Amino acid sequence: MFKKVLIANRGEIACRIIRACKELGIKTVAIYNEIESTARHVKMADEAYMIGVNPLDTYLNAERIVDLALEVGAEAIHPGYGFLAENEHFARLCEEKGITFIGPHWKVIELMGDKARSKEIMKKLGVPTVPGSDGILKDEVEAKQIAKEIGYPVLLKASAGGGGRGIRICRNEEELLRNYESAYNEALKAFGRGDLLLEKYIENPRHIEFQVLGDKYGNVIHLGERDCSIQRRNQKLVEIAPSLILTPGKRAYYGEIVANAAKEIGYYSAGTMEFVADEKGNIYFIEMNTRIQVEHPVTEMITGVDIVKWQIRIAAGEPLRYKQEDIKFNGYAIECRINAEDPKKNFAPSIGVIERYYVPGGFGIRVEHAASRGYEITPYYDSLIAKLIVWAPQWEVAVERMRAALETYEITGIKTTIPLLIRIMQDEDFKKGRFTTKYLEEHPYLFEYEEVKSKEDFAAMIAAAIANYHGL
Amino acid sequence: MFKKVLIANRGEIACRIIRACKELGIKTVAIYNEIESTARHVKMADEAYMIGVNPLDTYLNAERIVDLALEVGAEAIHPGYGFLAENEHFARLCEEKGITFIGPHWKVIELMGDKARSKEIMKKLGVPTVPGSDGILKDEVEAKQIAKEIGYPVLLKASAGGGGRGIRICRNEEELLRNYESAYNEALKAFGRGDLLLEKYIENPRHIEFQVLGDKYGNVIHLGERDCSIQRRNQKLVEIAPSLILTPGKRAYYGEIVANAAKEIGYYSAGTMEFVADEKGNIYFIEMNTRIQVEHPVTEMITGVDIVKWQIRIAAGEPLRYKQEDIKFNGYAIECRINAEDPKKNFAPSIGVIERYYVPGGFGIRVEHAASRGYEITPYYDSLIAKLIVWAPQWEVAVERMRAALETYEITGIKTTIPLLIRIMQDEDFKKGRFTTKYLEEHPYLFEYEEVKSKEDFAAMIAAAIANYHGL
Repeated sequence: MFKKVLIANRGEIACRIIRACKELGIKTVAIYNEIESTARHVKMADEAYMIGVNPLDTYLNAERIVDLALEVGAEAIHPGYGFLAENEHFARLCEEKGITFIGPHWKVIELMGDKARSKEIMKKLGVPTVPGSDGILKDEVEAKQIAKEIGYPVLLKASAGGGGRGIRICRNEEELLRNYESAYNEALKAFGRGDLLLEKYIENPRHIEFQVLGDKYGNVIHLGERDCSIQRRNQKLVEIAPSLILTPGKRAYYGEIVANAAKEIGYYSAGTMEFVADEKGNIYFIEMNTRIQVEHPVTEMITGVDIVKWQIRIAAGEPLRYKQEDIKFNGYAIECRINAEDPKKNFAPSIGVIERYYVPGGFGIRVEHAASRGYEITPYYDSLIAKLIVWAPQWEVAVERMRAALETYEITGIKTTIPLLIRIMQDEDFKKGRFTTKYLEEHPYLFEYEEVKSKEDFAAMIAAAIANYHGL
Repeated sequence: MFKKVLIANRGEIACRIIRACKELGIKTVAIYNEIESTARHVKMADEAYMIGVNPLDTYLNAERIVDLALEVGAEAIHPGYGFLAENEHFARLCEEKGITFIGPHWKVIELMGDKARSKEIMKKLGVPTVPGSDGILKDEVEAKQIAKEIGYPVLLKASAGGGGRGIRICRNEEELLRNYESAYNEALKAFGRGDLLLEKYIENPRHIEFQVLGDKYGNVIHLGERDCSIQRRNQKLVEIAPSLILTPGKRAYYGEIVANAAKEIGYYSAGTMEFVADEKGNIYFIEMNTRIQVEHPVTEMITGVDIVKWQIRIAAGEPLRYKQEDIKFNGYAIECRINAEDPKKNFAPSIGVIERYYVPGGFGIRVEHAASRGYEITPYYDSLIAKLIVWAPQWEVAVERMRAALETYEITGIKTTIPLLIRIMQDEDFKKGRFTTKYLEEHPYLFEYEEVKSKEDFAAMIAAAIANYHGL
């Protein structure tokens, strides 16, 4: 096992990884920059090094990070998610410098990073894919021809995509022709290349993803699926495991296909295959994420498998201690992303300092966070403050537990997604499992909540109660 | 089910009960006094009423609490632990006023509150008890005679005891005669009566307790046992479930006896039978606690049964949905009490305000607390700030997880038990399960820890790192 690991990340995921290392008896090295000098991951690690002043490039500074690992004697680097996590050049640089990259091999990252090619490969390996272009579109003419074959609506999509950029829904030929150029240009601007794909657009789609875990000896298992349909601006907001639409039979059937495909491409470490699901629970491969995902805790809660610890063990050369038949799915888990955003203002980031902070705890309640009172939300990083995760033996109990936990979570000084999330937990459609990726836009009344009482209101209320008691 | 419940308690247990009510869709009523007006349980409840100025009698003001319940339309009162939880007069008052007391019947509380009588009853019902006096001692002469029969060392113990008061170990006749009067007087002073019991003293004892849960229809099950041997000044500090010394056969054997005895006395709600265990895993009944216990979460973690929610359901007349064979014991759980105390100064209370506060979260980690930054520890209530609970499939993993979680728990401004608890998690005797109720006194080196770096030290360290980076 490694003696020391460098964590090339920040925020809650850096804390998550540091904790996994601590449990494994591994020393940890954090990196930071001037504005993050008092951040939680810095305090939590055994060693911490300031490697930058500019908050935007600290955690992307591949060369500096690898050099630091060598300097301080860290044998491995965990990239977390985002930043360098799916950068094949970084993973390759680690290999060249003799540092273990905690993730799959860089060749696999590269392969899966090319969305057109990864879809082709998965199709060949028997993974169901959405009907569409076999790879990158030549031009508008080809796009038009394929759309005619598979039928409208269709989706135009950047090959190098992510974060929803370069994506267009086209309901007829006219829309397709109109969107082609703008999607191309947006992709070119965002990713450096404008290559587009075309595929059948699934109406009322759900986002389903399968978690896989493989070691360096060809053992690959799946840990079931998550439903991450509830999204805002193509970013996940609520994630659940297991999904409410896959039957045990479909889970076993697709899981086997997914694990087998991962084995065939030589996948090791944790990875996720993302699918779009139609209303009947048929799923179609979209892309593979070759890293730990934000929503991994819900899978941990229902399987009991500590995915981050296994990433580290696998990177160190340990064989998987689970066989597929060892994995039992127990109960239901929900994760809510507590973001510093104002849902009423189209989820605009809410910058500021947390004034009051109370974290709910209790039976079946898990929090992943780097926050505390005084924590500053800056414009430099994503808006995630905390992940609130609940587990319960039944779906209905999990929803009630999440609602109760959200109601007792106190964050003041900034706007958060909490009031919206409470409304979601109270919504009959959500409770009944009736939600697609369009859930939020189709339920505008969820946004009609009252703002939480401010500290001042609360103080006034208390003062009134005390005055009343004394008969004043 | 109840529509509204009044919680006659404060701190973490009040928050725990409010959360259970929220999950069950029950409105909650909190009570408080002037110094607790901004306490977490006040914020968390749907309604809160200031019923006192004096912090010492607020939560003991039986008449006022029952009247308030009637005034605000609360159909039931949950007493938590401590305060009025085991006060049969309060439970009876509730019954008389038509309020449901969430706990067993007052007659059972009364019966078990008399330690001599409860031991007699349990003995008759086949529960093993420590050899000793059949009830209250007449005088020194009788004490001497019984001690001779059962053999030294023996224990003198107040019949109305609790909190370690009125207890004396006597290793020979001389010590017995010398201690008799002082124990009597101490008991008289503490409990209003000096009645003493005598029993065989178990060397190297462990504290083992069985959790029972019964409904109002005679269905009683047990939820296994906890080992709460690690204590400071007769107060529990670390609790685990299951114990490491009971074999599955002994667990099933004793569990059956315990559940049966509870059924025989007409017990309903949650209750705990406390035992002393010898080195071979034989257990002897000490007393029964007729309330929820501080350490109930470890049992919840290994059984999946939400004990507090079941207390409420049972009080409302619901039948138990579990049979004994439904209860499976899964993995290991540890609870550490994070107290505002200085372990190096014989656990003297540490009064003050929490300056910095970061609560660890993550896989298998549960926190029960009412604290946040700015939380004031007053001299009026017990020193418990938070309960940190971990679960893991294996004992060794649970210990590592607890250590890692303790290391990342940040509380400044006051002294806490955290550094001592970290040392315990690192101790080979603890890891190997070698601990008795004398563990702390036999391991003085656990107290030789360095104090945690203060905020100022940390700031200086960071400033130095920044200066270094800029080449200053």
